[in-house]
Order: sequence, then structure tokens, then C-alpha cells
Amino acid sequence: MTASSAVDEAALDRLVRGTTAVVSRDELSDRLAIAAKEGRPLRIKLGADPSAPDLHLGHTVVLNKLRDFQELGHTVIFLIGDFTARIGDPSGRSEGRRPLDPEEIRRNAATYTDQVFAILDRERTEVRMNSEWMDRMTASDLIRLCGQYTVARILERDDFSARFREQRPIGIHEFLYPLIQGYDSIALRADVEVGGSDQRFNLLVGRELQKSHGMAPQIIMTLPILEGTDGVQKMSKSLGNYVGIRESPDEMFGKIMSISDELMGRWYEILEPHDARAVADQVRSGSLHPREAKARLGARQVAKFHGQSAADLARERFDERFRKHELPESMVRLWEAGESLPPEIVVPALLTKSGLTKSNSEARRLIAQGAVRIDGRVLASERYRTDDDASNRDPVLLVEVGKRRACRVVFSGRAVT
Amino acid sequence: MTASSAVDEAALDRLVRGTTAVVSRDELSDRLAIAAKEGRPLRIKLGADPSAPDLHLGHTVVLNKLRDFQELGHTVIFLIGDFTARIGDPSGRSEGRRPLDPEEIRRNAATYTDQVFAILDRERTEVRMNSEWMDRMTASDLIRLCGQYTVARILERDDFSARFREQRPIGIHEFLYPLIQGYDSIALRADVEVGGSDQRFNLLVGRELQKSHGMAPQIIMTLPILEGTDGVQKMSKSLGNYVGIRESPDEMFGKIMSISDELMGRWYEILEPHDARAVADQVRSGSLHPREAKARLGARQVAKFHGQSAADLARERFDERFRKHELPESMVRLWEAGESLPPEIVVPALLTKSGLTKSNSEARRLIAQGAVRIDGRVLASERYRTDDDASNRDPVLLVEVGKRRACRVVFSGRAVT
Repeated sequence: MTASSAVDEAALDRLVRGTTAVVSRDELSDRLAIAAKEGRPLRIKLGADPSAPDLHLGHTVVLNKLRDFQELGHTVIFLIGDFTARIGDPSGRSEGRRPLDPEEIRRNAATYTDQVFAILDRERTEVRMNSEWMDRMTASDLIRLCGQYTVARILERDDFSARFREQRPIGIHEFLYPLIQGYDSIALRADVEVGGSDQRFNLLVGRELQKSHGMAPQIIMTLPILEGTDGVQKMSKSLGNYVGIRESPDEMFGKIMSISDELMGRWYEILEPHDARAVADQVRSGSLHPREAKARLGARQVAKFHGQSAADLARERFDERFRKHELPESMVRLWEAGESLPPEIVVPALLTKSGLTKSNSEARRLIAQGAVRIDGRVLASERYRTDDDASNRDPVLLVEVGKRRACRVVFSGRAVT
Repeated sequence: MTASSAVDEAALDRLVRGTTAVVSRDELSDRLAIAAKEGRPLRIKLGADPSAPDLHLGHTVVLNKLRDFQELGHTVIFLIGDFTARIGDPSGRSEGRRPLDPEEIRRNAATYTDQVFAILDRERTEVRMNSEWMDRMTASDLIRLCGQYTVARILERDDFSARFREQRPIGIHEFLYPLIQGYDSIALRADVEVGGSDQRFNLLVGRELQKSHGMAPQIIMTLPILEGTDGVQKMSKSLGNYVGIRESPDEMFGKIMSISDELMGRWYEILEPHDARAVADQVRSGSLHPREAKARLGARQVAKFHGQSAADLARERFDERFRKHELPESMVRLWEAGESLPPEIVVPALLTKSGLTKSNSEARRLIAQGAVRIDGRVLASERYRTDDDASNRDPVLLVEVGKRRACRVVFSGRAVT
């Protein structure tokens, strides 16, 4: 009888569900069996950078996975990388990595953990800072740690290899950070480390360093990166394509209702992996309207952070404001001109004012590329003559930029508030 | 009037003489002028590894240069790299870099400095160990230091770039050592660092790190690497091609007399640069016999470490033992068979026994390559029939391997002791 035969296969399936990689499922199974036998919870590590304290749905992907572990009785170690944040980027090249002082870190960490406990169980979470052990580490300890890894293997990390190939400078200190992150796993005696799929390399370093230190290597689990509301880039506050977990129920619900049907399918897979296949099947068979599926996804996310009744209310309010005007739910933005349809529209100004483009120059470039359509027809000039087209007397224009950006432009008194 | 115009040009010429590179002569000139004006001696750094305490003529090349500085009133900092020696090679790849304990380091350092003061002026030498500041360095200090240098620039070092290209592993700790060596120059406030020409890269790192720390960058001076008695490889104890400064006068003198005339010219340039051109001219014009030039070189080196009368005596004894037997002075080794010339000789055994090759298999390979000659004729087989050649009845055979290795093999009672 192997250890894994003692493991609850349903629990294992739940833990593995929604991941992009697990190294390895067998080891996880064995480790769960050992934990069960010894009556101890597993230690599940998540590393976080204390400089970005505003959580959004993208962050919840790994947090949901940690919650799965907690519901099975395991302990989450929420590790704040304060040590490296205090150092910043000593080469001074990346402005985004200025050194943080301890007070800033403490404040950021408090903001971060407050939000994290919207998903995690506080009772089953250890919040740690790596300065605990890194402040005591000497230069000679660090040199010995560096002896466990080769330059060639560090350069395999995608971003390093690209920068090295393109002759963009890599500071030597940058090679040390994955090793320090790996050392944290040794110090914490992590059984499992969870991260986004872009963290795969760093998580593997921890696994290998634990082996070099004679420890059972941590199992690594990576989770998919959530695309932002634009459906193109990784969700990020700085790109403005995020749904923040502290936004109001109306904002959250509205943003989720604005995503495309295609993106909705991917968000289901990532945010609600237990349910994604059933919903996709129902939408495909026609038994579930995409709009209804999207509203359920939105209400579920709102409910996680604001409770079920707030979610229900947000949905009602959304319906009142939008559905009653029979505007399409997806890809909707409103621009109120407060006047009836003029005979000619300066399109770059319209695109920028409506938020579809960032600037008039971007708008002009996109028009020149043939990427802008009004009511389905590619725009040939920067002016749109509304009286050219007799069929287009409706004071609501559908304006599209590329495949992903679109809005209804509503003129006249019919504009909603 | 610039600073350099105040400098003693003769002193500057002397300091620059015999170097392979100075970065830069102008800066050295300026620094000497500043020192003179401020009435302070310059601080001249030499870094040494405490794991190899047996000094040979190869080491004396840089020590002679340091002595030049001392005779002009400057201070030599003889820095023992005990910090890194205590760490050894944490990757465990290089057996030669096992960690040393403090007692071993103390013992090695004492042996080392004892020998160094055969050349250096003890009164104008500071002996330091880099553990003084490196033991206090924290991991975060080291990370900040690493931020001053890029991966690409470290990989420019010849040995790193070759290993990287050939996909031989480089431990990340190895990237840190040149930075630590450079940091030593900051800690010591070195004005000048001296080293072998193979140290050029490391010395430049120190210069650049001093700049990053807002200090006047050290001037670097590199000196040529002395070839061993074989005339091929760098002088090294492990290769057995060295002349140790603690060897007896007879051993030192005999080894120097064994080198080729060509190598003698290069040793003059490196060991006696003030005299090399005059000697070369005299040998070329025939006014000085190469043997006499070589004997002077030998006597001078012996005199440095054992005094003039010991040098004279060594020369007399050498003449008695060798010249009276009319054996050529260069490329002489003796192998006593204590028997008359046999009709057939097994050459691989002879080569190995006489020290010309390291093993019989090496000897067989060299014979097959046509690299072995006896009495000037290329050997075609591994057996040498002495009775094949009526002219070769002399019981002294000249055995040559390649261009550099040769010995006289003396049989019979005529062998000298």
C-alpha cells in the first residue's frame, strides 16, 4: 500500500483543479498522506511584494487556491518580501523599485493582509516577513547560498534570457533575488508553494534549494494569469483593466458585465473552475443566455467581497440602468452628448472622450489602420457624416476599435444617467 | 602647471618599467603628485590567496614592483583574502577550493608573509585580512554591492566567457568574488593595485566600484606572468616547473641554469627589467656568452634570497659538477643507469624515468607523433637500438621531447653524482 492510496482523491482533485502546473501531483498526494498520518497541517507558502497593496480579481486566483487548502485543514503562510523591498534596486535602473522604509512596508502589509482576509481564513494563516531571517543573514551565508545555483540555470528564466539576448543590462543583484525567494521556502519549511504561472521558475528554485539543504522539496502549484477587462493584457491596476476587490458592488458588477462573452468563458475557468465546464455547455446548448451567465459570474464575485444581498442589489440596479434601455450588455460605455445627432462627427475626439483611445493621435493612427468601425462599417476618414447613410438615423452609434474595444455613443435626451 | 609636472619622471619611469599595463600612467603621475603635495605615502594593494603559501620566482615579479614603490616611500598593503578562503567553493565543484579553517589560514598567512619579507620592506608593509570588513558585511550590503555591476560585464572576464560559451557550469557565488575583491579596494582606500596580467579584469572591477562609491579610482598595474622552467606553462608549484624562493642556493642556481637560452631572455625581461635590454644586446653581439648571462641571472636570484656569498658558492659548485664534465648547461637532466650502454633501450620507460614525460602512455603518444628525438634523429619506434648507428657509441644520449624538453642520459661509470 503506497502513501497515496490513503489520500482522499476528491480532495486531491479539488486542490489540483484550475492549476496550470503541479510539480508534482504524485508528490502532493504523498505529502497529503504524510500530513494526515502525522496529524499535522501542510504549510502552503505564498510570497507577496509589499509595494502593491491594492488587490484585484487577478490576485484572487491564487488566494482562492489557498482557501481550498485551508478548507482542507492546512496552514497558509502569507510571506511578505519586506527584506528585498527595503533594498529596492541598488543599480538605480528601475524606478519602480525604489527602496521602501519600514513604516511604508508595515502600512502596505497591513493594507494587503486586510484585503487578503476577504478570502483567506485568518485562523489558518501565518503572516510572516522574510526580514525575520534575511536580516540575520551574513554576506558569507549568501555566498554559500549562491554556490547552490549556476549562472546558466538562472539565465534560463524567460525574462533574464530575453534581456541577456537583447543586451539589456541585468544587475548581479537580480540573480540573487530568486535564490533569496527560494531560501524563504527553506526558512519556512514550506510543503507547497503557490504562485502565478509567471512565477514557475522562482518556485522551482525554492524546490531545488530545499533539496540541496536536505529537505523534502516543496510541491509547486501555478495558477493561470487572469486577463484584464480588455481581454488582452494581464489584469493590473496600472493598466486600468482591473476589477478591484474593494470597489463598490456596482463598479465590480458593471465592469464584469462589460467584458466580452469570450473573455467571460476564460474568467469562469480561472475564477470559478468548479463550475466553468457546466456553464460553457449550457451556453453552447442555448439553455443559458450568455448575459445570464455573465451576471451570475459578476454576482458571485461581488458576493465574495460584499455579501450576497449586495450582489443581488448590484445586479438589480444594473438591470434598471442598462437593460431597460436595450443597450447590449457587453462592451458598453456611455458617452452623453446631450444633444441630437449632428450631421458630422470628429471621430478622434469622440474616441478619446469615450475612453476608447488614450489620445487623439492614437485615434488617428487607428483610423488610418482601418481599425475603427461605426455601426459595423470601417471608417475611411476622421470625419463621420451621419447624413450619408439614410439607414443610420438612430441617435445611438455603435463605435468599435479593433476587436475588443467598443461603445454605444448615445446622443439626445435618451442618454441614461 | 599641472600636477604631473611636479612629479619625478625618473621615479615614474621606474614604477612603470616591466609592467604589461598601467591604467593609467597619467593618473599615476597625478596621484604621485598629490601624495607628494599632501606628504602622505600612496597605498599600494596586493591581494593574495592564503591557500598557496610556497613562494617561487613567479611571485617575485609583483613583489619586486611593490618593492619599487616602497623604495620611493610608499606603503604596501599585503591583503590576505581569508574571508573567501574560509568559504571555499560552496558548490563543491572545485576540489582545490575546500574551505580552510582559521588556524590553517593563520598558519598559511604566517608562512606567506615570512617569505614576502624576503623582498618587501616590513616597515612599509601593512598586512591585512579581508575578514576585517567582510565578516561584518550583511547579506543586504552584499546585494547592494552586486547592484553596482551587471551580469554582462562580469561575463566579459575571459575565463567566465569561455566557460559560459562552452556550457561549463559557473556558480553564482563566483560572480561575487571579483566584486568582493573590488570592495576590498574600497575598504583599504587603495591608490594603486598591482597584480599579474591575468588579474587585469579583477583589478578593474575594484577601480570601477571605487568610482561608484565616490572615491578616486585606484590606478591598476599588471605585471607579466613568468613562465616555468619548461618555458611553456605559467610557473606553478603544482606543475613542478618552479624555482622556489626557499630552495637551497644549489637548487635555485641549477634550475635556472637548466632553462633554454630563449627562456633566459624572457626571464631577464621579467625578473631584471632594468638590465634585460643591455644583456640581450651583449649576447646578440657575441660580447657575452649566453651561459655567462644565464649564470648571472641565476646568481642574482640566489643572492636576493640567500645573499651574495651563497650565490657565488652555488655558482662555483655548479661549475665543478657540470661544466667539468662538458655537458651542455641548458636542458640538462641526469639519469644514472650505472651500467654501460645496452644494445636496445625501451624508450617510454626511459622518458618517464628521466622525467621527460609523466607516464609511459604519454611517452608512447609522443613517439607516435614523431616528437621524440635521440641524438637529433626522430625516433620511429618505441625501441631504440644503440648498435644501429656506428657513430653513436658514446654512452651519453641526447634525448629530446618536442622543442622544450631534453636531457642527457648518461650511462656507465661516467655518470656524475
